[in-house]
Amino acid sequence: MSSGIRGQLTSKYGELVRGGLAELLGTGILVLFGCGSCTFGNKEMIALTFGLVIMCMATSLGHVSGCHLNPAVTLGLLLNGQVEWLNAIVYVIGQFVGAVVGAGILAAILDTDHLCPTGLNAMITPFAGIVIETILTFVLILVICNVCESNPTMAPLAIGLTVATGHLFAIELSGSSMNPARSFGPALIGNIWKDHYVYWVGPLIGGALAGLTHRFFFFNSKLSKRG
Amino acid sequence: MSSGIRGQLTSKYGELVRGGLAELLGTGILVLFGCGSCTFGNKEMIALTFGLVIMCMATSLGHVSGCHLNPAVTLGLLLNGQVEWLNAIVYVIGQFVGAVVGAGILAAILDTDHLCPTGLNAMITPFAGIVIETILTFVLILVICNVCESNPTMAPLAIGLTVATGHLFAIELSGSSMNPARSFGPALIGNIWKDHYVYWVGPLIGGALAGLTHRFFFFNSKLSKRG
Amino acid sequence: MSSGIRGQLTSKYGELVRGGLAELLGTGILVLFGCGSCTFGNKEMIALTFGLVIMCMATSLGHVSGCHLNPAVTLGLLLNGQVEWLNAIVYVIGQFVGAVVGAGILAAILDTDHLCPTGLNAMITPFAGIVIETILTFVLILVICNVCESNPTMAPLAIGLTVATGHLFAIELSGSSMNPARSFGPALIGNIWKDHYVYWVGPLIGGALAGLTHRFFFFNSKLSKRG
Amino acid sequence: MSSGIRGQLTSKYGELVRGGLAELLGTGILVLFGCGSCTFGNKEMIALTFGLVIMCMATSLGHVSGCHLNPAVTLGLLLNGQVEWLNAIVYVIGQFVGAVVGAGILAAILDTDHLCPTGLNAMITPFAGIVIETILTFVLILVICNVCESNPTMAPLAIGLTVATGHLFAIELSGSSMNPARSFGPALIGNIWKDHYVYWVGPLIGGALAGLTHRFFFFNSKLSKRG
Ligand SMILES: [Ca+2]
Ligand SMILES: [Ca+2]
Ligand SMILES: [Ca+2]
Ligand SMILES: [Ca+2]
Repeated sequence: MSSGIRGQLTSKYGELVRGGLAELLGTGILVLFGCGSCTFGNKEMIALTFGLVIMCMATSLGHVSGCHLNPAVTLGLLLNGQVEWLNAIVYVIGQFVGAVVGAGILAAILDTDHLCPTGLNAMITPFAGIVIETILTFVLILVICNVCESNPTMAPLAIGLTVATGHLFAIELSGSSMNPARSFGPALIGNIWKDHYVYWVGPLIGGALAGLTHRFFFFNSKLSKRG
Repeated sequence: MSSGIRGQLTSKYGELVRGGLAELLGTGILVLFGCGSCTFGNKEMIALTFGLVIMCMATSLGHVSGCHLNPAVTLGLLLNGQVEWLNAIVYVIGQFVGAVVGAGILAAILDTDHLCPTGLNAMITPFAGIVIETILTFVLILVICNVCESNPTMAPLAIGLTVATGHLFAIELSGSSMNPARSFGPALIGNIWKDHYVYWVGPLIGGALAGLTHRFFFFNSKLSKRG
Repeated sequence: MSSGIRGQLTSKYGELVRGGLAELLGTGILVLFGCGSCTFGNKEMIALTFGLVIMCMATSLGHVSGCHLNPAVTLGLLLNGQVEWLNAIVYVIGQFVGAVVGAGILAAILDTDHLCPTGLNAMITPFAGIVIETILTFVLILVICNVCESNPTMAPLAIGLTVATGHLFAIELSGSSMNPARSFGPALIGNIWKDHYVYWVGPLIGGALAGLTHRFFFFNSKLSKRG
Repeated sequence: MSSGIRGQLTSKYGELVRGGLAELLGTGILVLFGCGSCTFGNKEMIALTFGLVIMCMATSLGHVSGCHLNPAVTLGLLLNGQVEWLNAIVYVIGQFVGAVVGAGILAAILDTDHLCPTGLNAMITPFAGIVIETILTFVLILVICNVCESNPTMAPLAIGLTVATGHLFAIELSGSSMNPARSFGPALIGNIWKDHYVYWVGPLIGGALAGLTHRFFFFNSKLSKRG
């Protein structure tokens, strides 16, 4: 590769394109693997798949965009001062496009449109669902805000296992989405929109709360000082 | 944030408030996720949830208070010289309040009061239950005493997996509490007190033994010398 | 050991012999353990065995040859500039010999020739199978291309868990081979060749795509610059 | 603690006593937790318990004795030049005493003498059992020989997951002992000696082969040079 092309790709604009495509690719793989595991997997296997596939993508693409794969993560990191506005917009577009493409590939492979959409257990009200999704996402993004700077060696595994933990607790209650893009892809392809707003409201509130809580209260005073 | 507020929060008093609230938040999440996983999870999923949620909270809040989430841990670290008296008292208050709040949120979400209380298998006498809880907690706190200083990169995962290991061995025998606060929250909300003293006596003896054993016998001579 | 023998073993030729034998040993253990776990294990246990045995071998032999254990990995790293042609040829020979020996030992131990061959679910066409295997291997080798340089501490576990993740998603769909050698060993010993080409075409395309994608687009600009 | 007592404990003789007691304690916990998990656990839970309890003890006591917990490990490290004769003898005595004590405590708690002894599946001949145990232990000790020096951060988890991997593959075939002490404790307490020699012959051959193979062939030339 000529240094000219590498130079273009490592310019500010090039980094933005690389970042958006990394988010698209990563979120597509997340939806393909995670929702794909629902076809034959038990709840524990689904939990591990959703968690570990995030570990995979953070390990392979974390250096490009931070590998958020989730608009709630991007929002939380924006409010925590760890990502810029322009990047955030590009990443979120990539996440939604990727989630739809991932769900589309799964639909083609499996020849079905029932693609593991997120939904509420009969015992869970939409309000309770929002509370659960808010708390799940709050914990996830509180982990992300601290671990990426304080323990980068473990960050991909810690983040992945946090997603797995959320599923182990709540997969049968709220579907443990924590992620509007993950919920949007299968909803669009399968045209299943029941309680869909739960998976936007809860994760975005949880992500925003986590970013602000980490920034202004549980900040890590041993690391860089923002604000 | 003005540096004035940050300055207040990083003063000795501010650190105490932050620490107490971190223990409250972390123990609340521990009880919510761990006990919540009992509703639909099999024993293996419950073991992983209780273990990994501790990894999550230690990763996100360990820098604030050490993230004990457990009075037996605080006692063990007090005897090992890793925490001061005033902090210990504040943390333990936070832990019990957090456990009750976590159990209360779970009760509200699930609309039930059966919240995964700890209890003994019919084949286990209370004395055997105390022995099991003592040994489980002894191992947990022996891990904590050494790993936080000798291997901070791995500490949250190692501690979380130690809790999971205790559950994998003993969840069907003693309920594998290792933690008076984790047992207290569901007991209070559900008003279930059978054999409850087992989960105070065993963990506190185990925690104290581990702290003293590490300090005076199995100390890590390559690290800081207390005593 | 005289320094003469050690000197021979650490010469360029000696390193080649050591590397080829490491690949043979490692791939043999991979097939023996992974395919052996199919005899009594459920899908989750099989997924963990195939993943974690790669962690074991990368931990014990990674310093010798990189511990590819997979011709698709060797191809991907060749195109990413992380392995030389001569080494690649020797490693791939070692991988195929090792896979056959591992399957042969398993056949002798179990006194059966049904050795966990890879095959397609009835709902999966050969074309869809190739797509799945291509994507699985693309993700695996994208992880390997980045993690070995950027996070060597975690590399064996991250790579192993990536293989486990691929199995958790796709073991019931395509058999989640990701590896022509792993598929070849049991196929030869059991003489089962149905859809066998899927496990050469998919992994080799996926490996090549990953190596080129990492080299020319998702390269890690904080690390060494190839090209 | 007066520096006099600490001084005695850190003398050569004191380190020997500390090491022997660490091996006794660690092997007792290994047998108690591992064999205890068999009472109610499925095969996957047993595999994780035996693996992760070794991670626990290596994390908490590795700095004292290396935390072998297994005569085959001590033999392998002796042949690899990583432990001295006198220490090896003391450690092995501690391991056998600990295994018997651990099995005895379990027998008392459970009020039974059926304590998860290791045994062969009906389809496995004693010779095949020895082959399996030899290979399992060879892999385990090849991991230990390399990881303790090359990647100490990950060593406890990597070693524990290697033990879990051996169980996932072979628990239904040979019982996946890899450890004469682990097999001896339950055999003595339960007086069950069928095929017991398999668990001495296999692990000791595997351990010796691994130590010699690592020392003279698959040595890590980037690390210290023994021989
Ligand atoms: Ca379709
Ligand atoms: Ca209620
Ligand atoms: Ca499992
Ligand atoms: Ca045969």
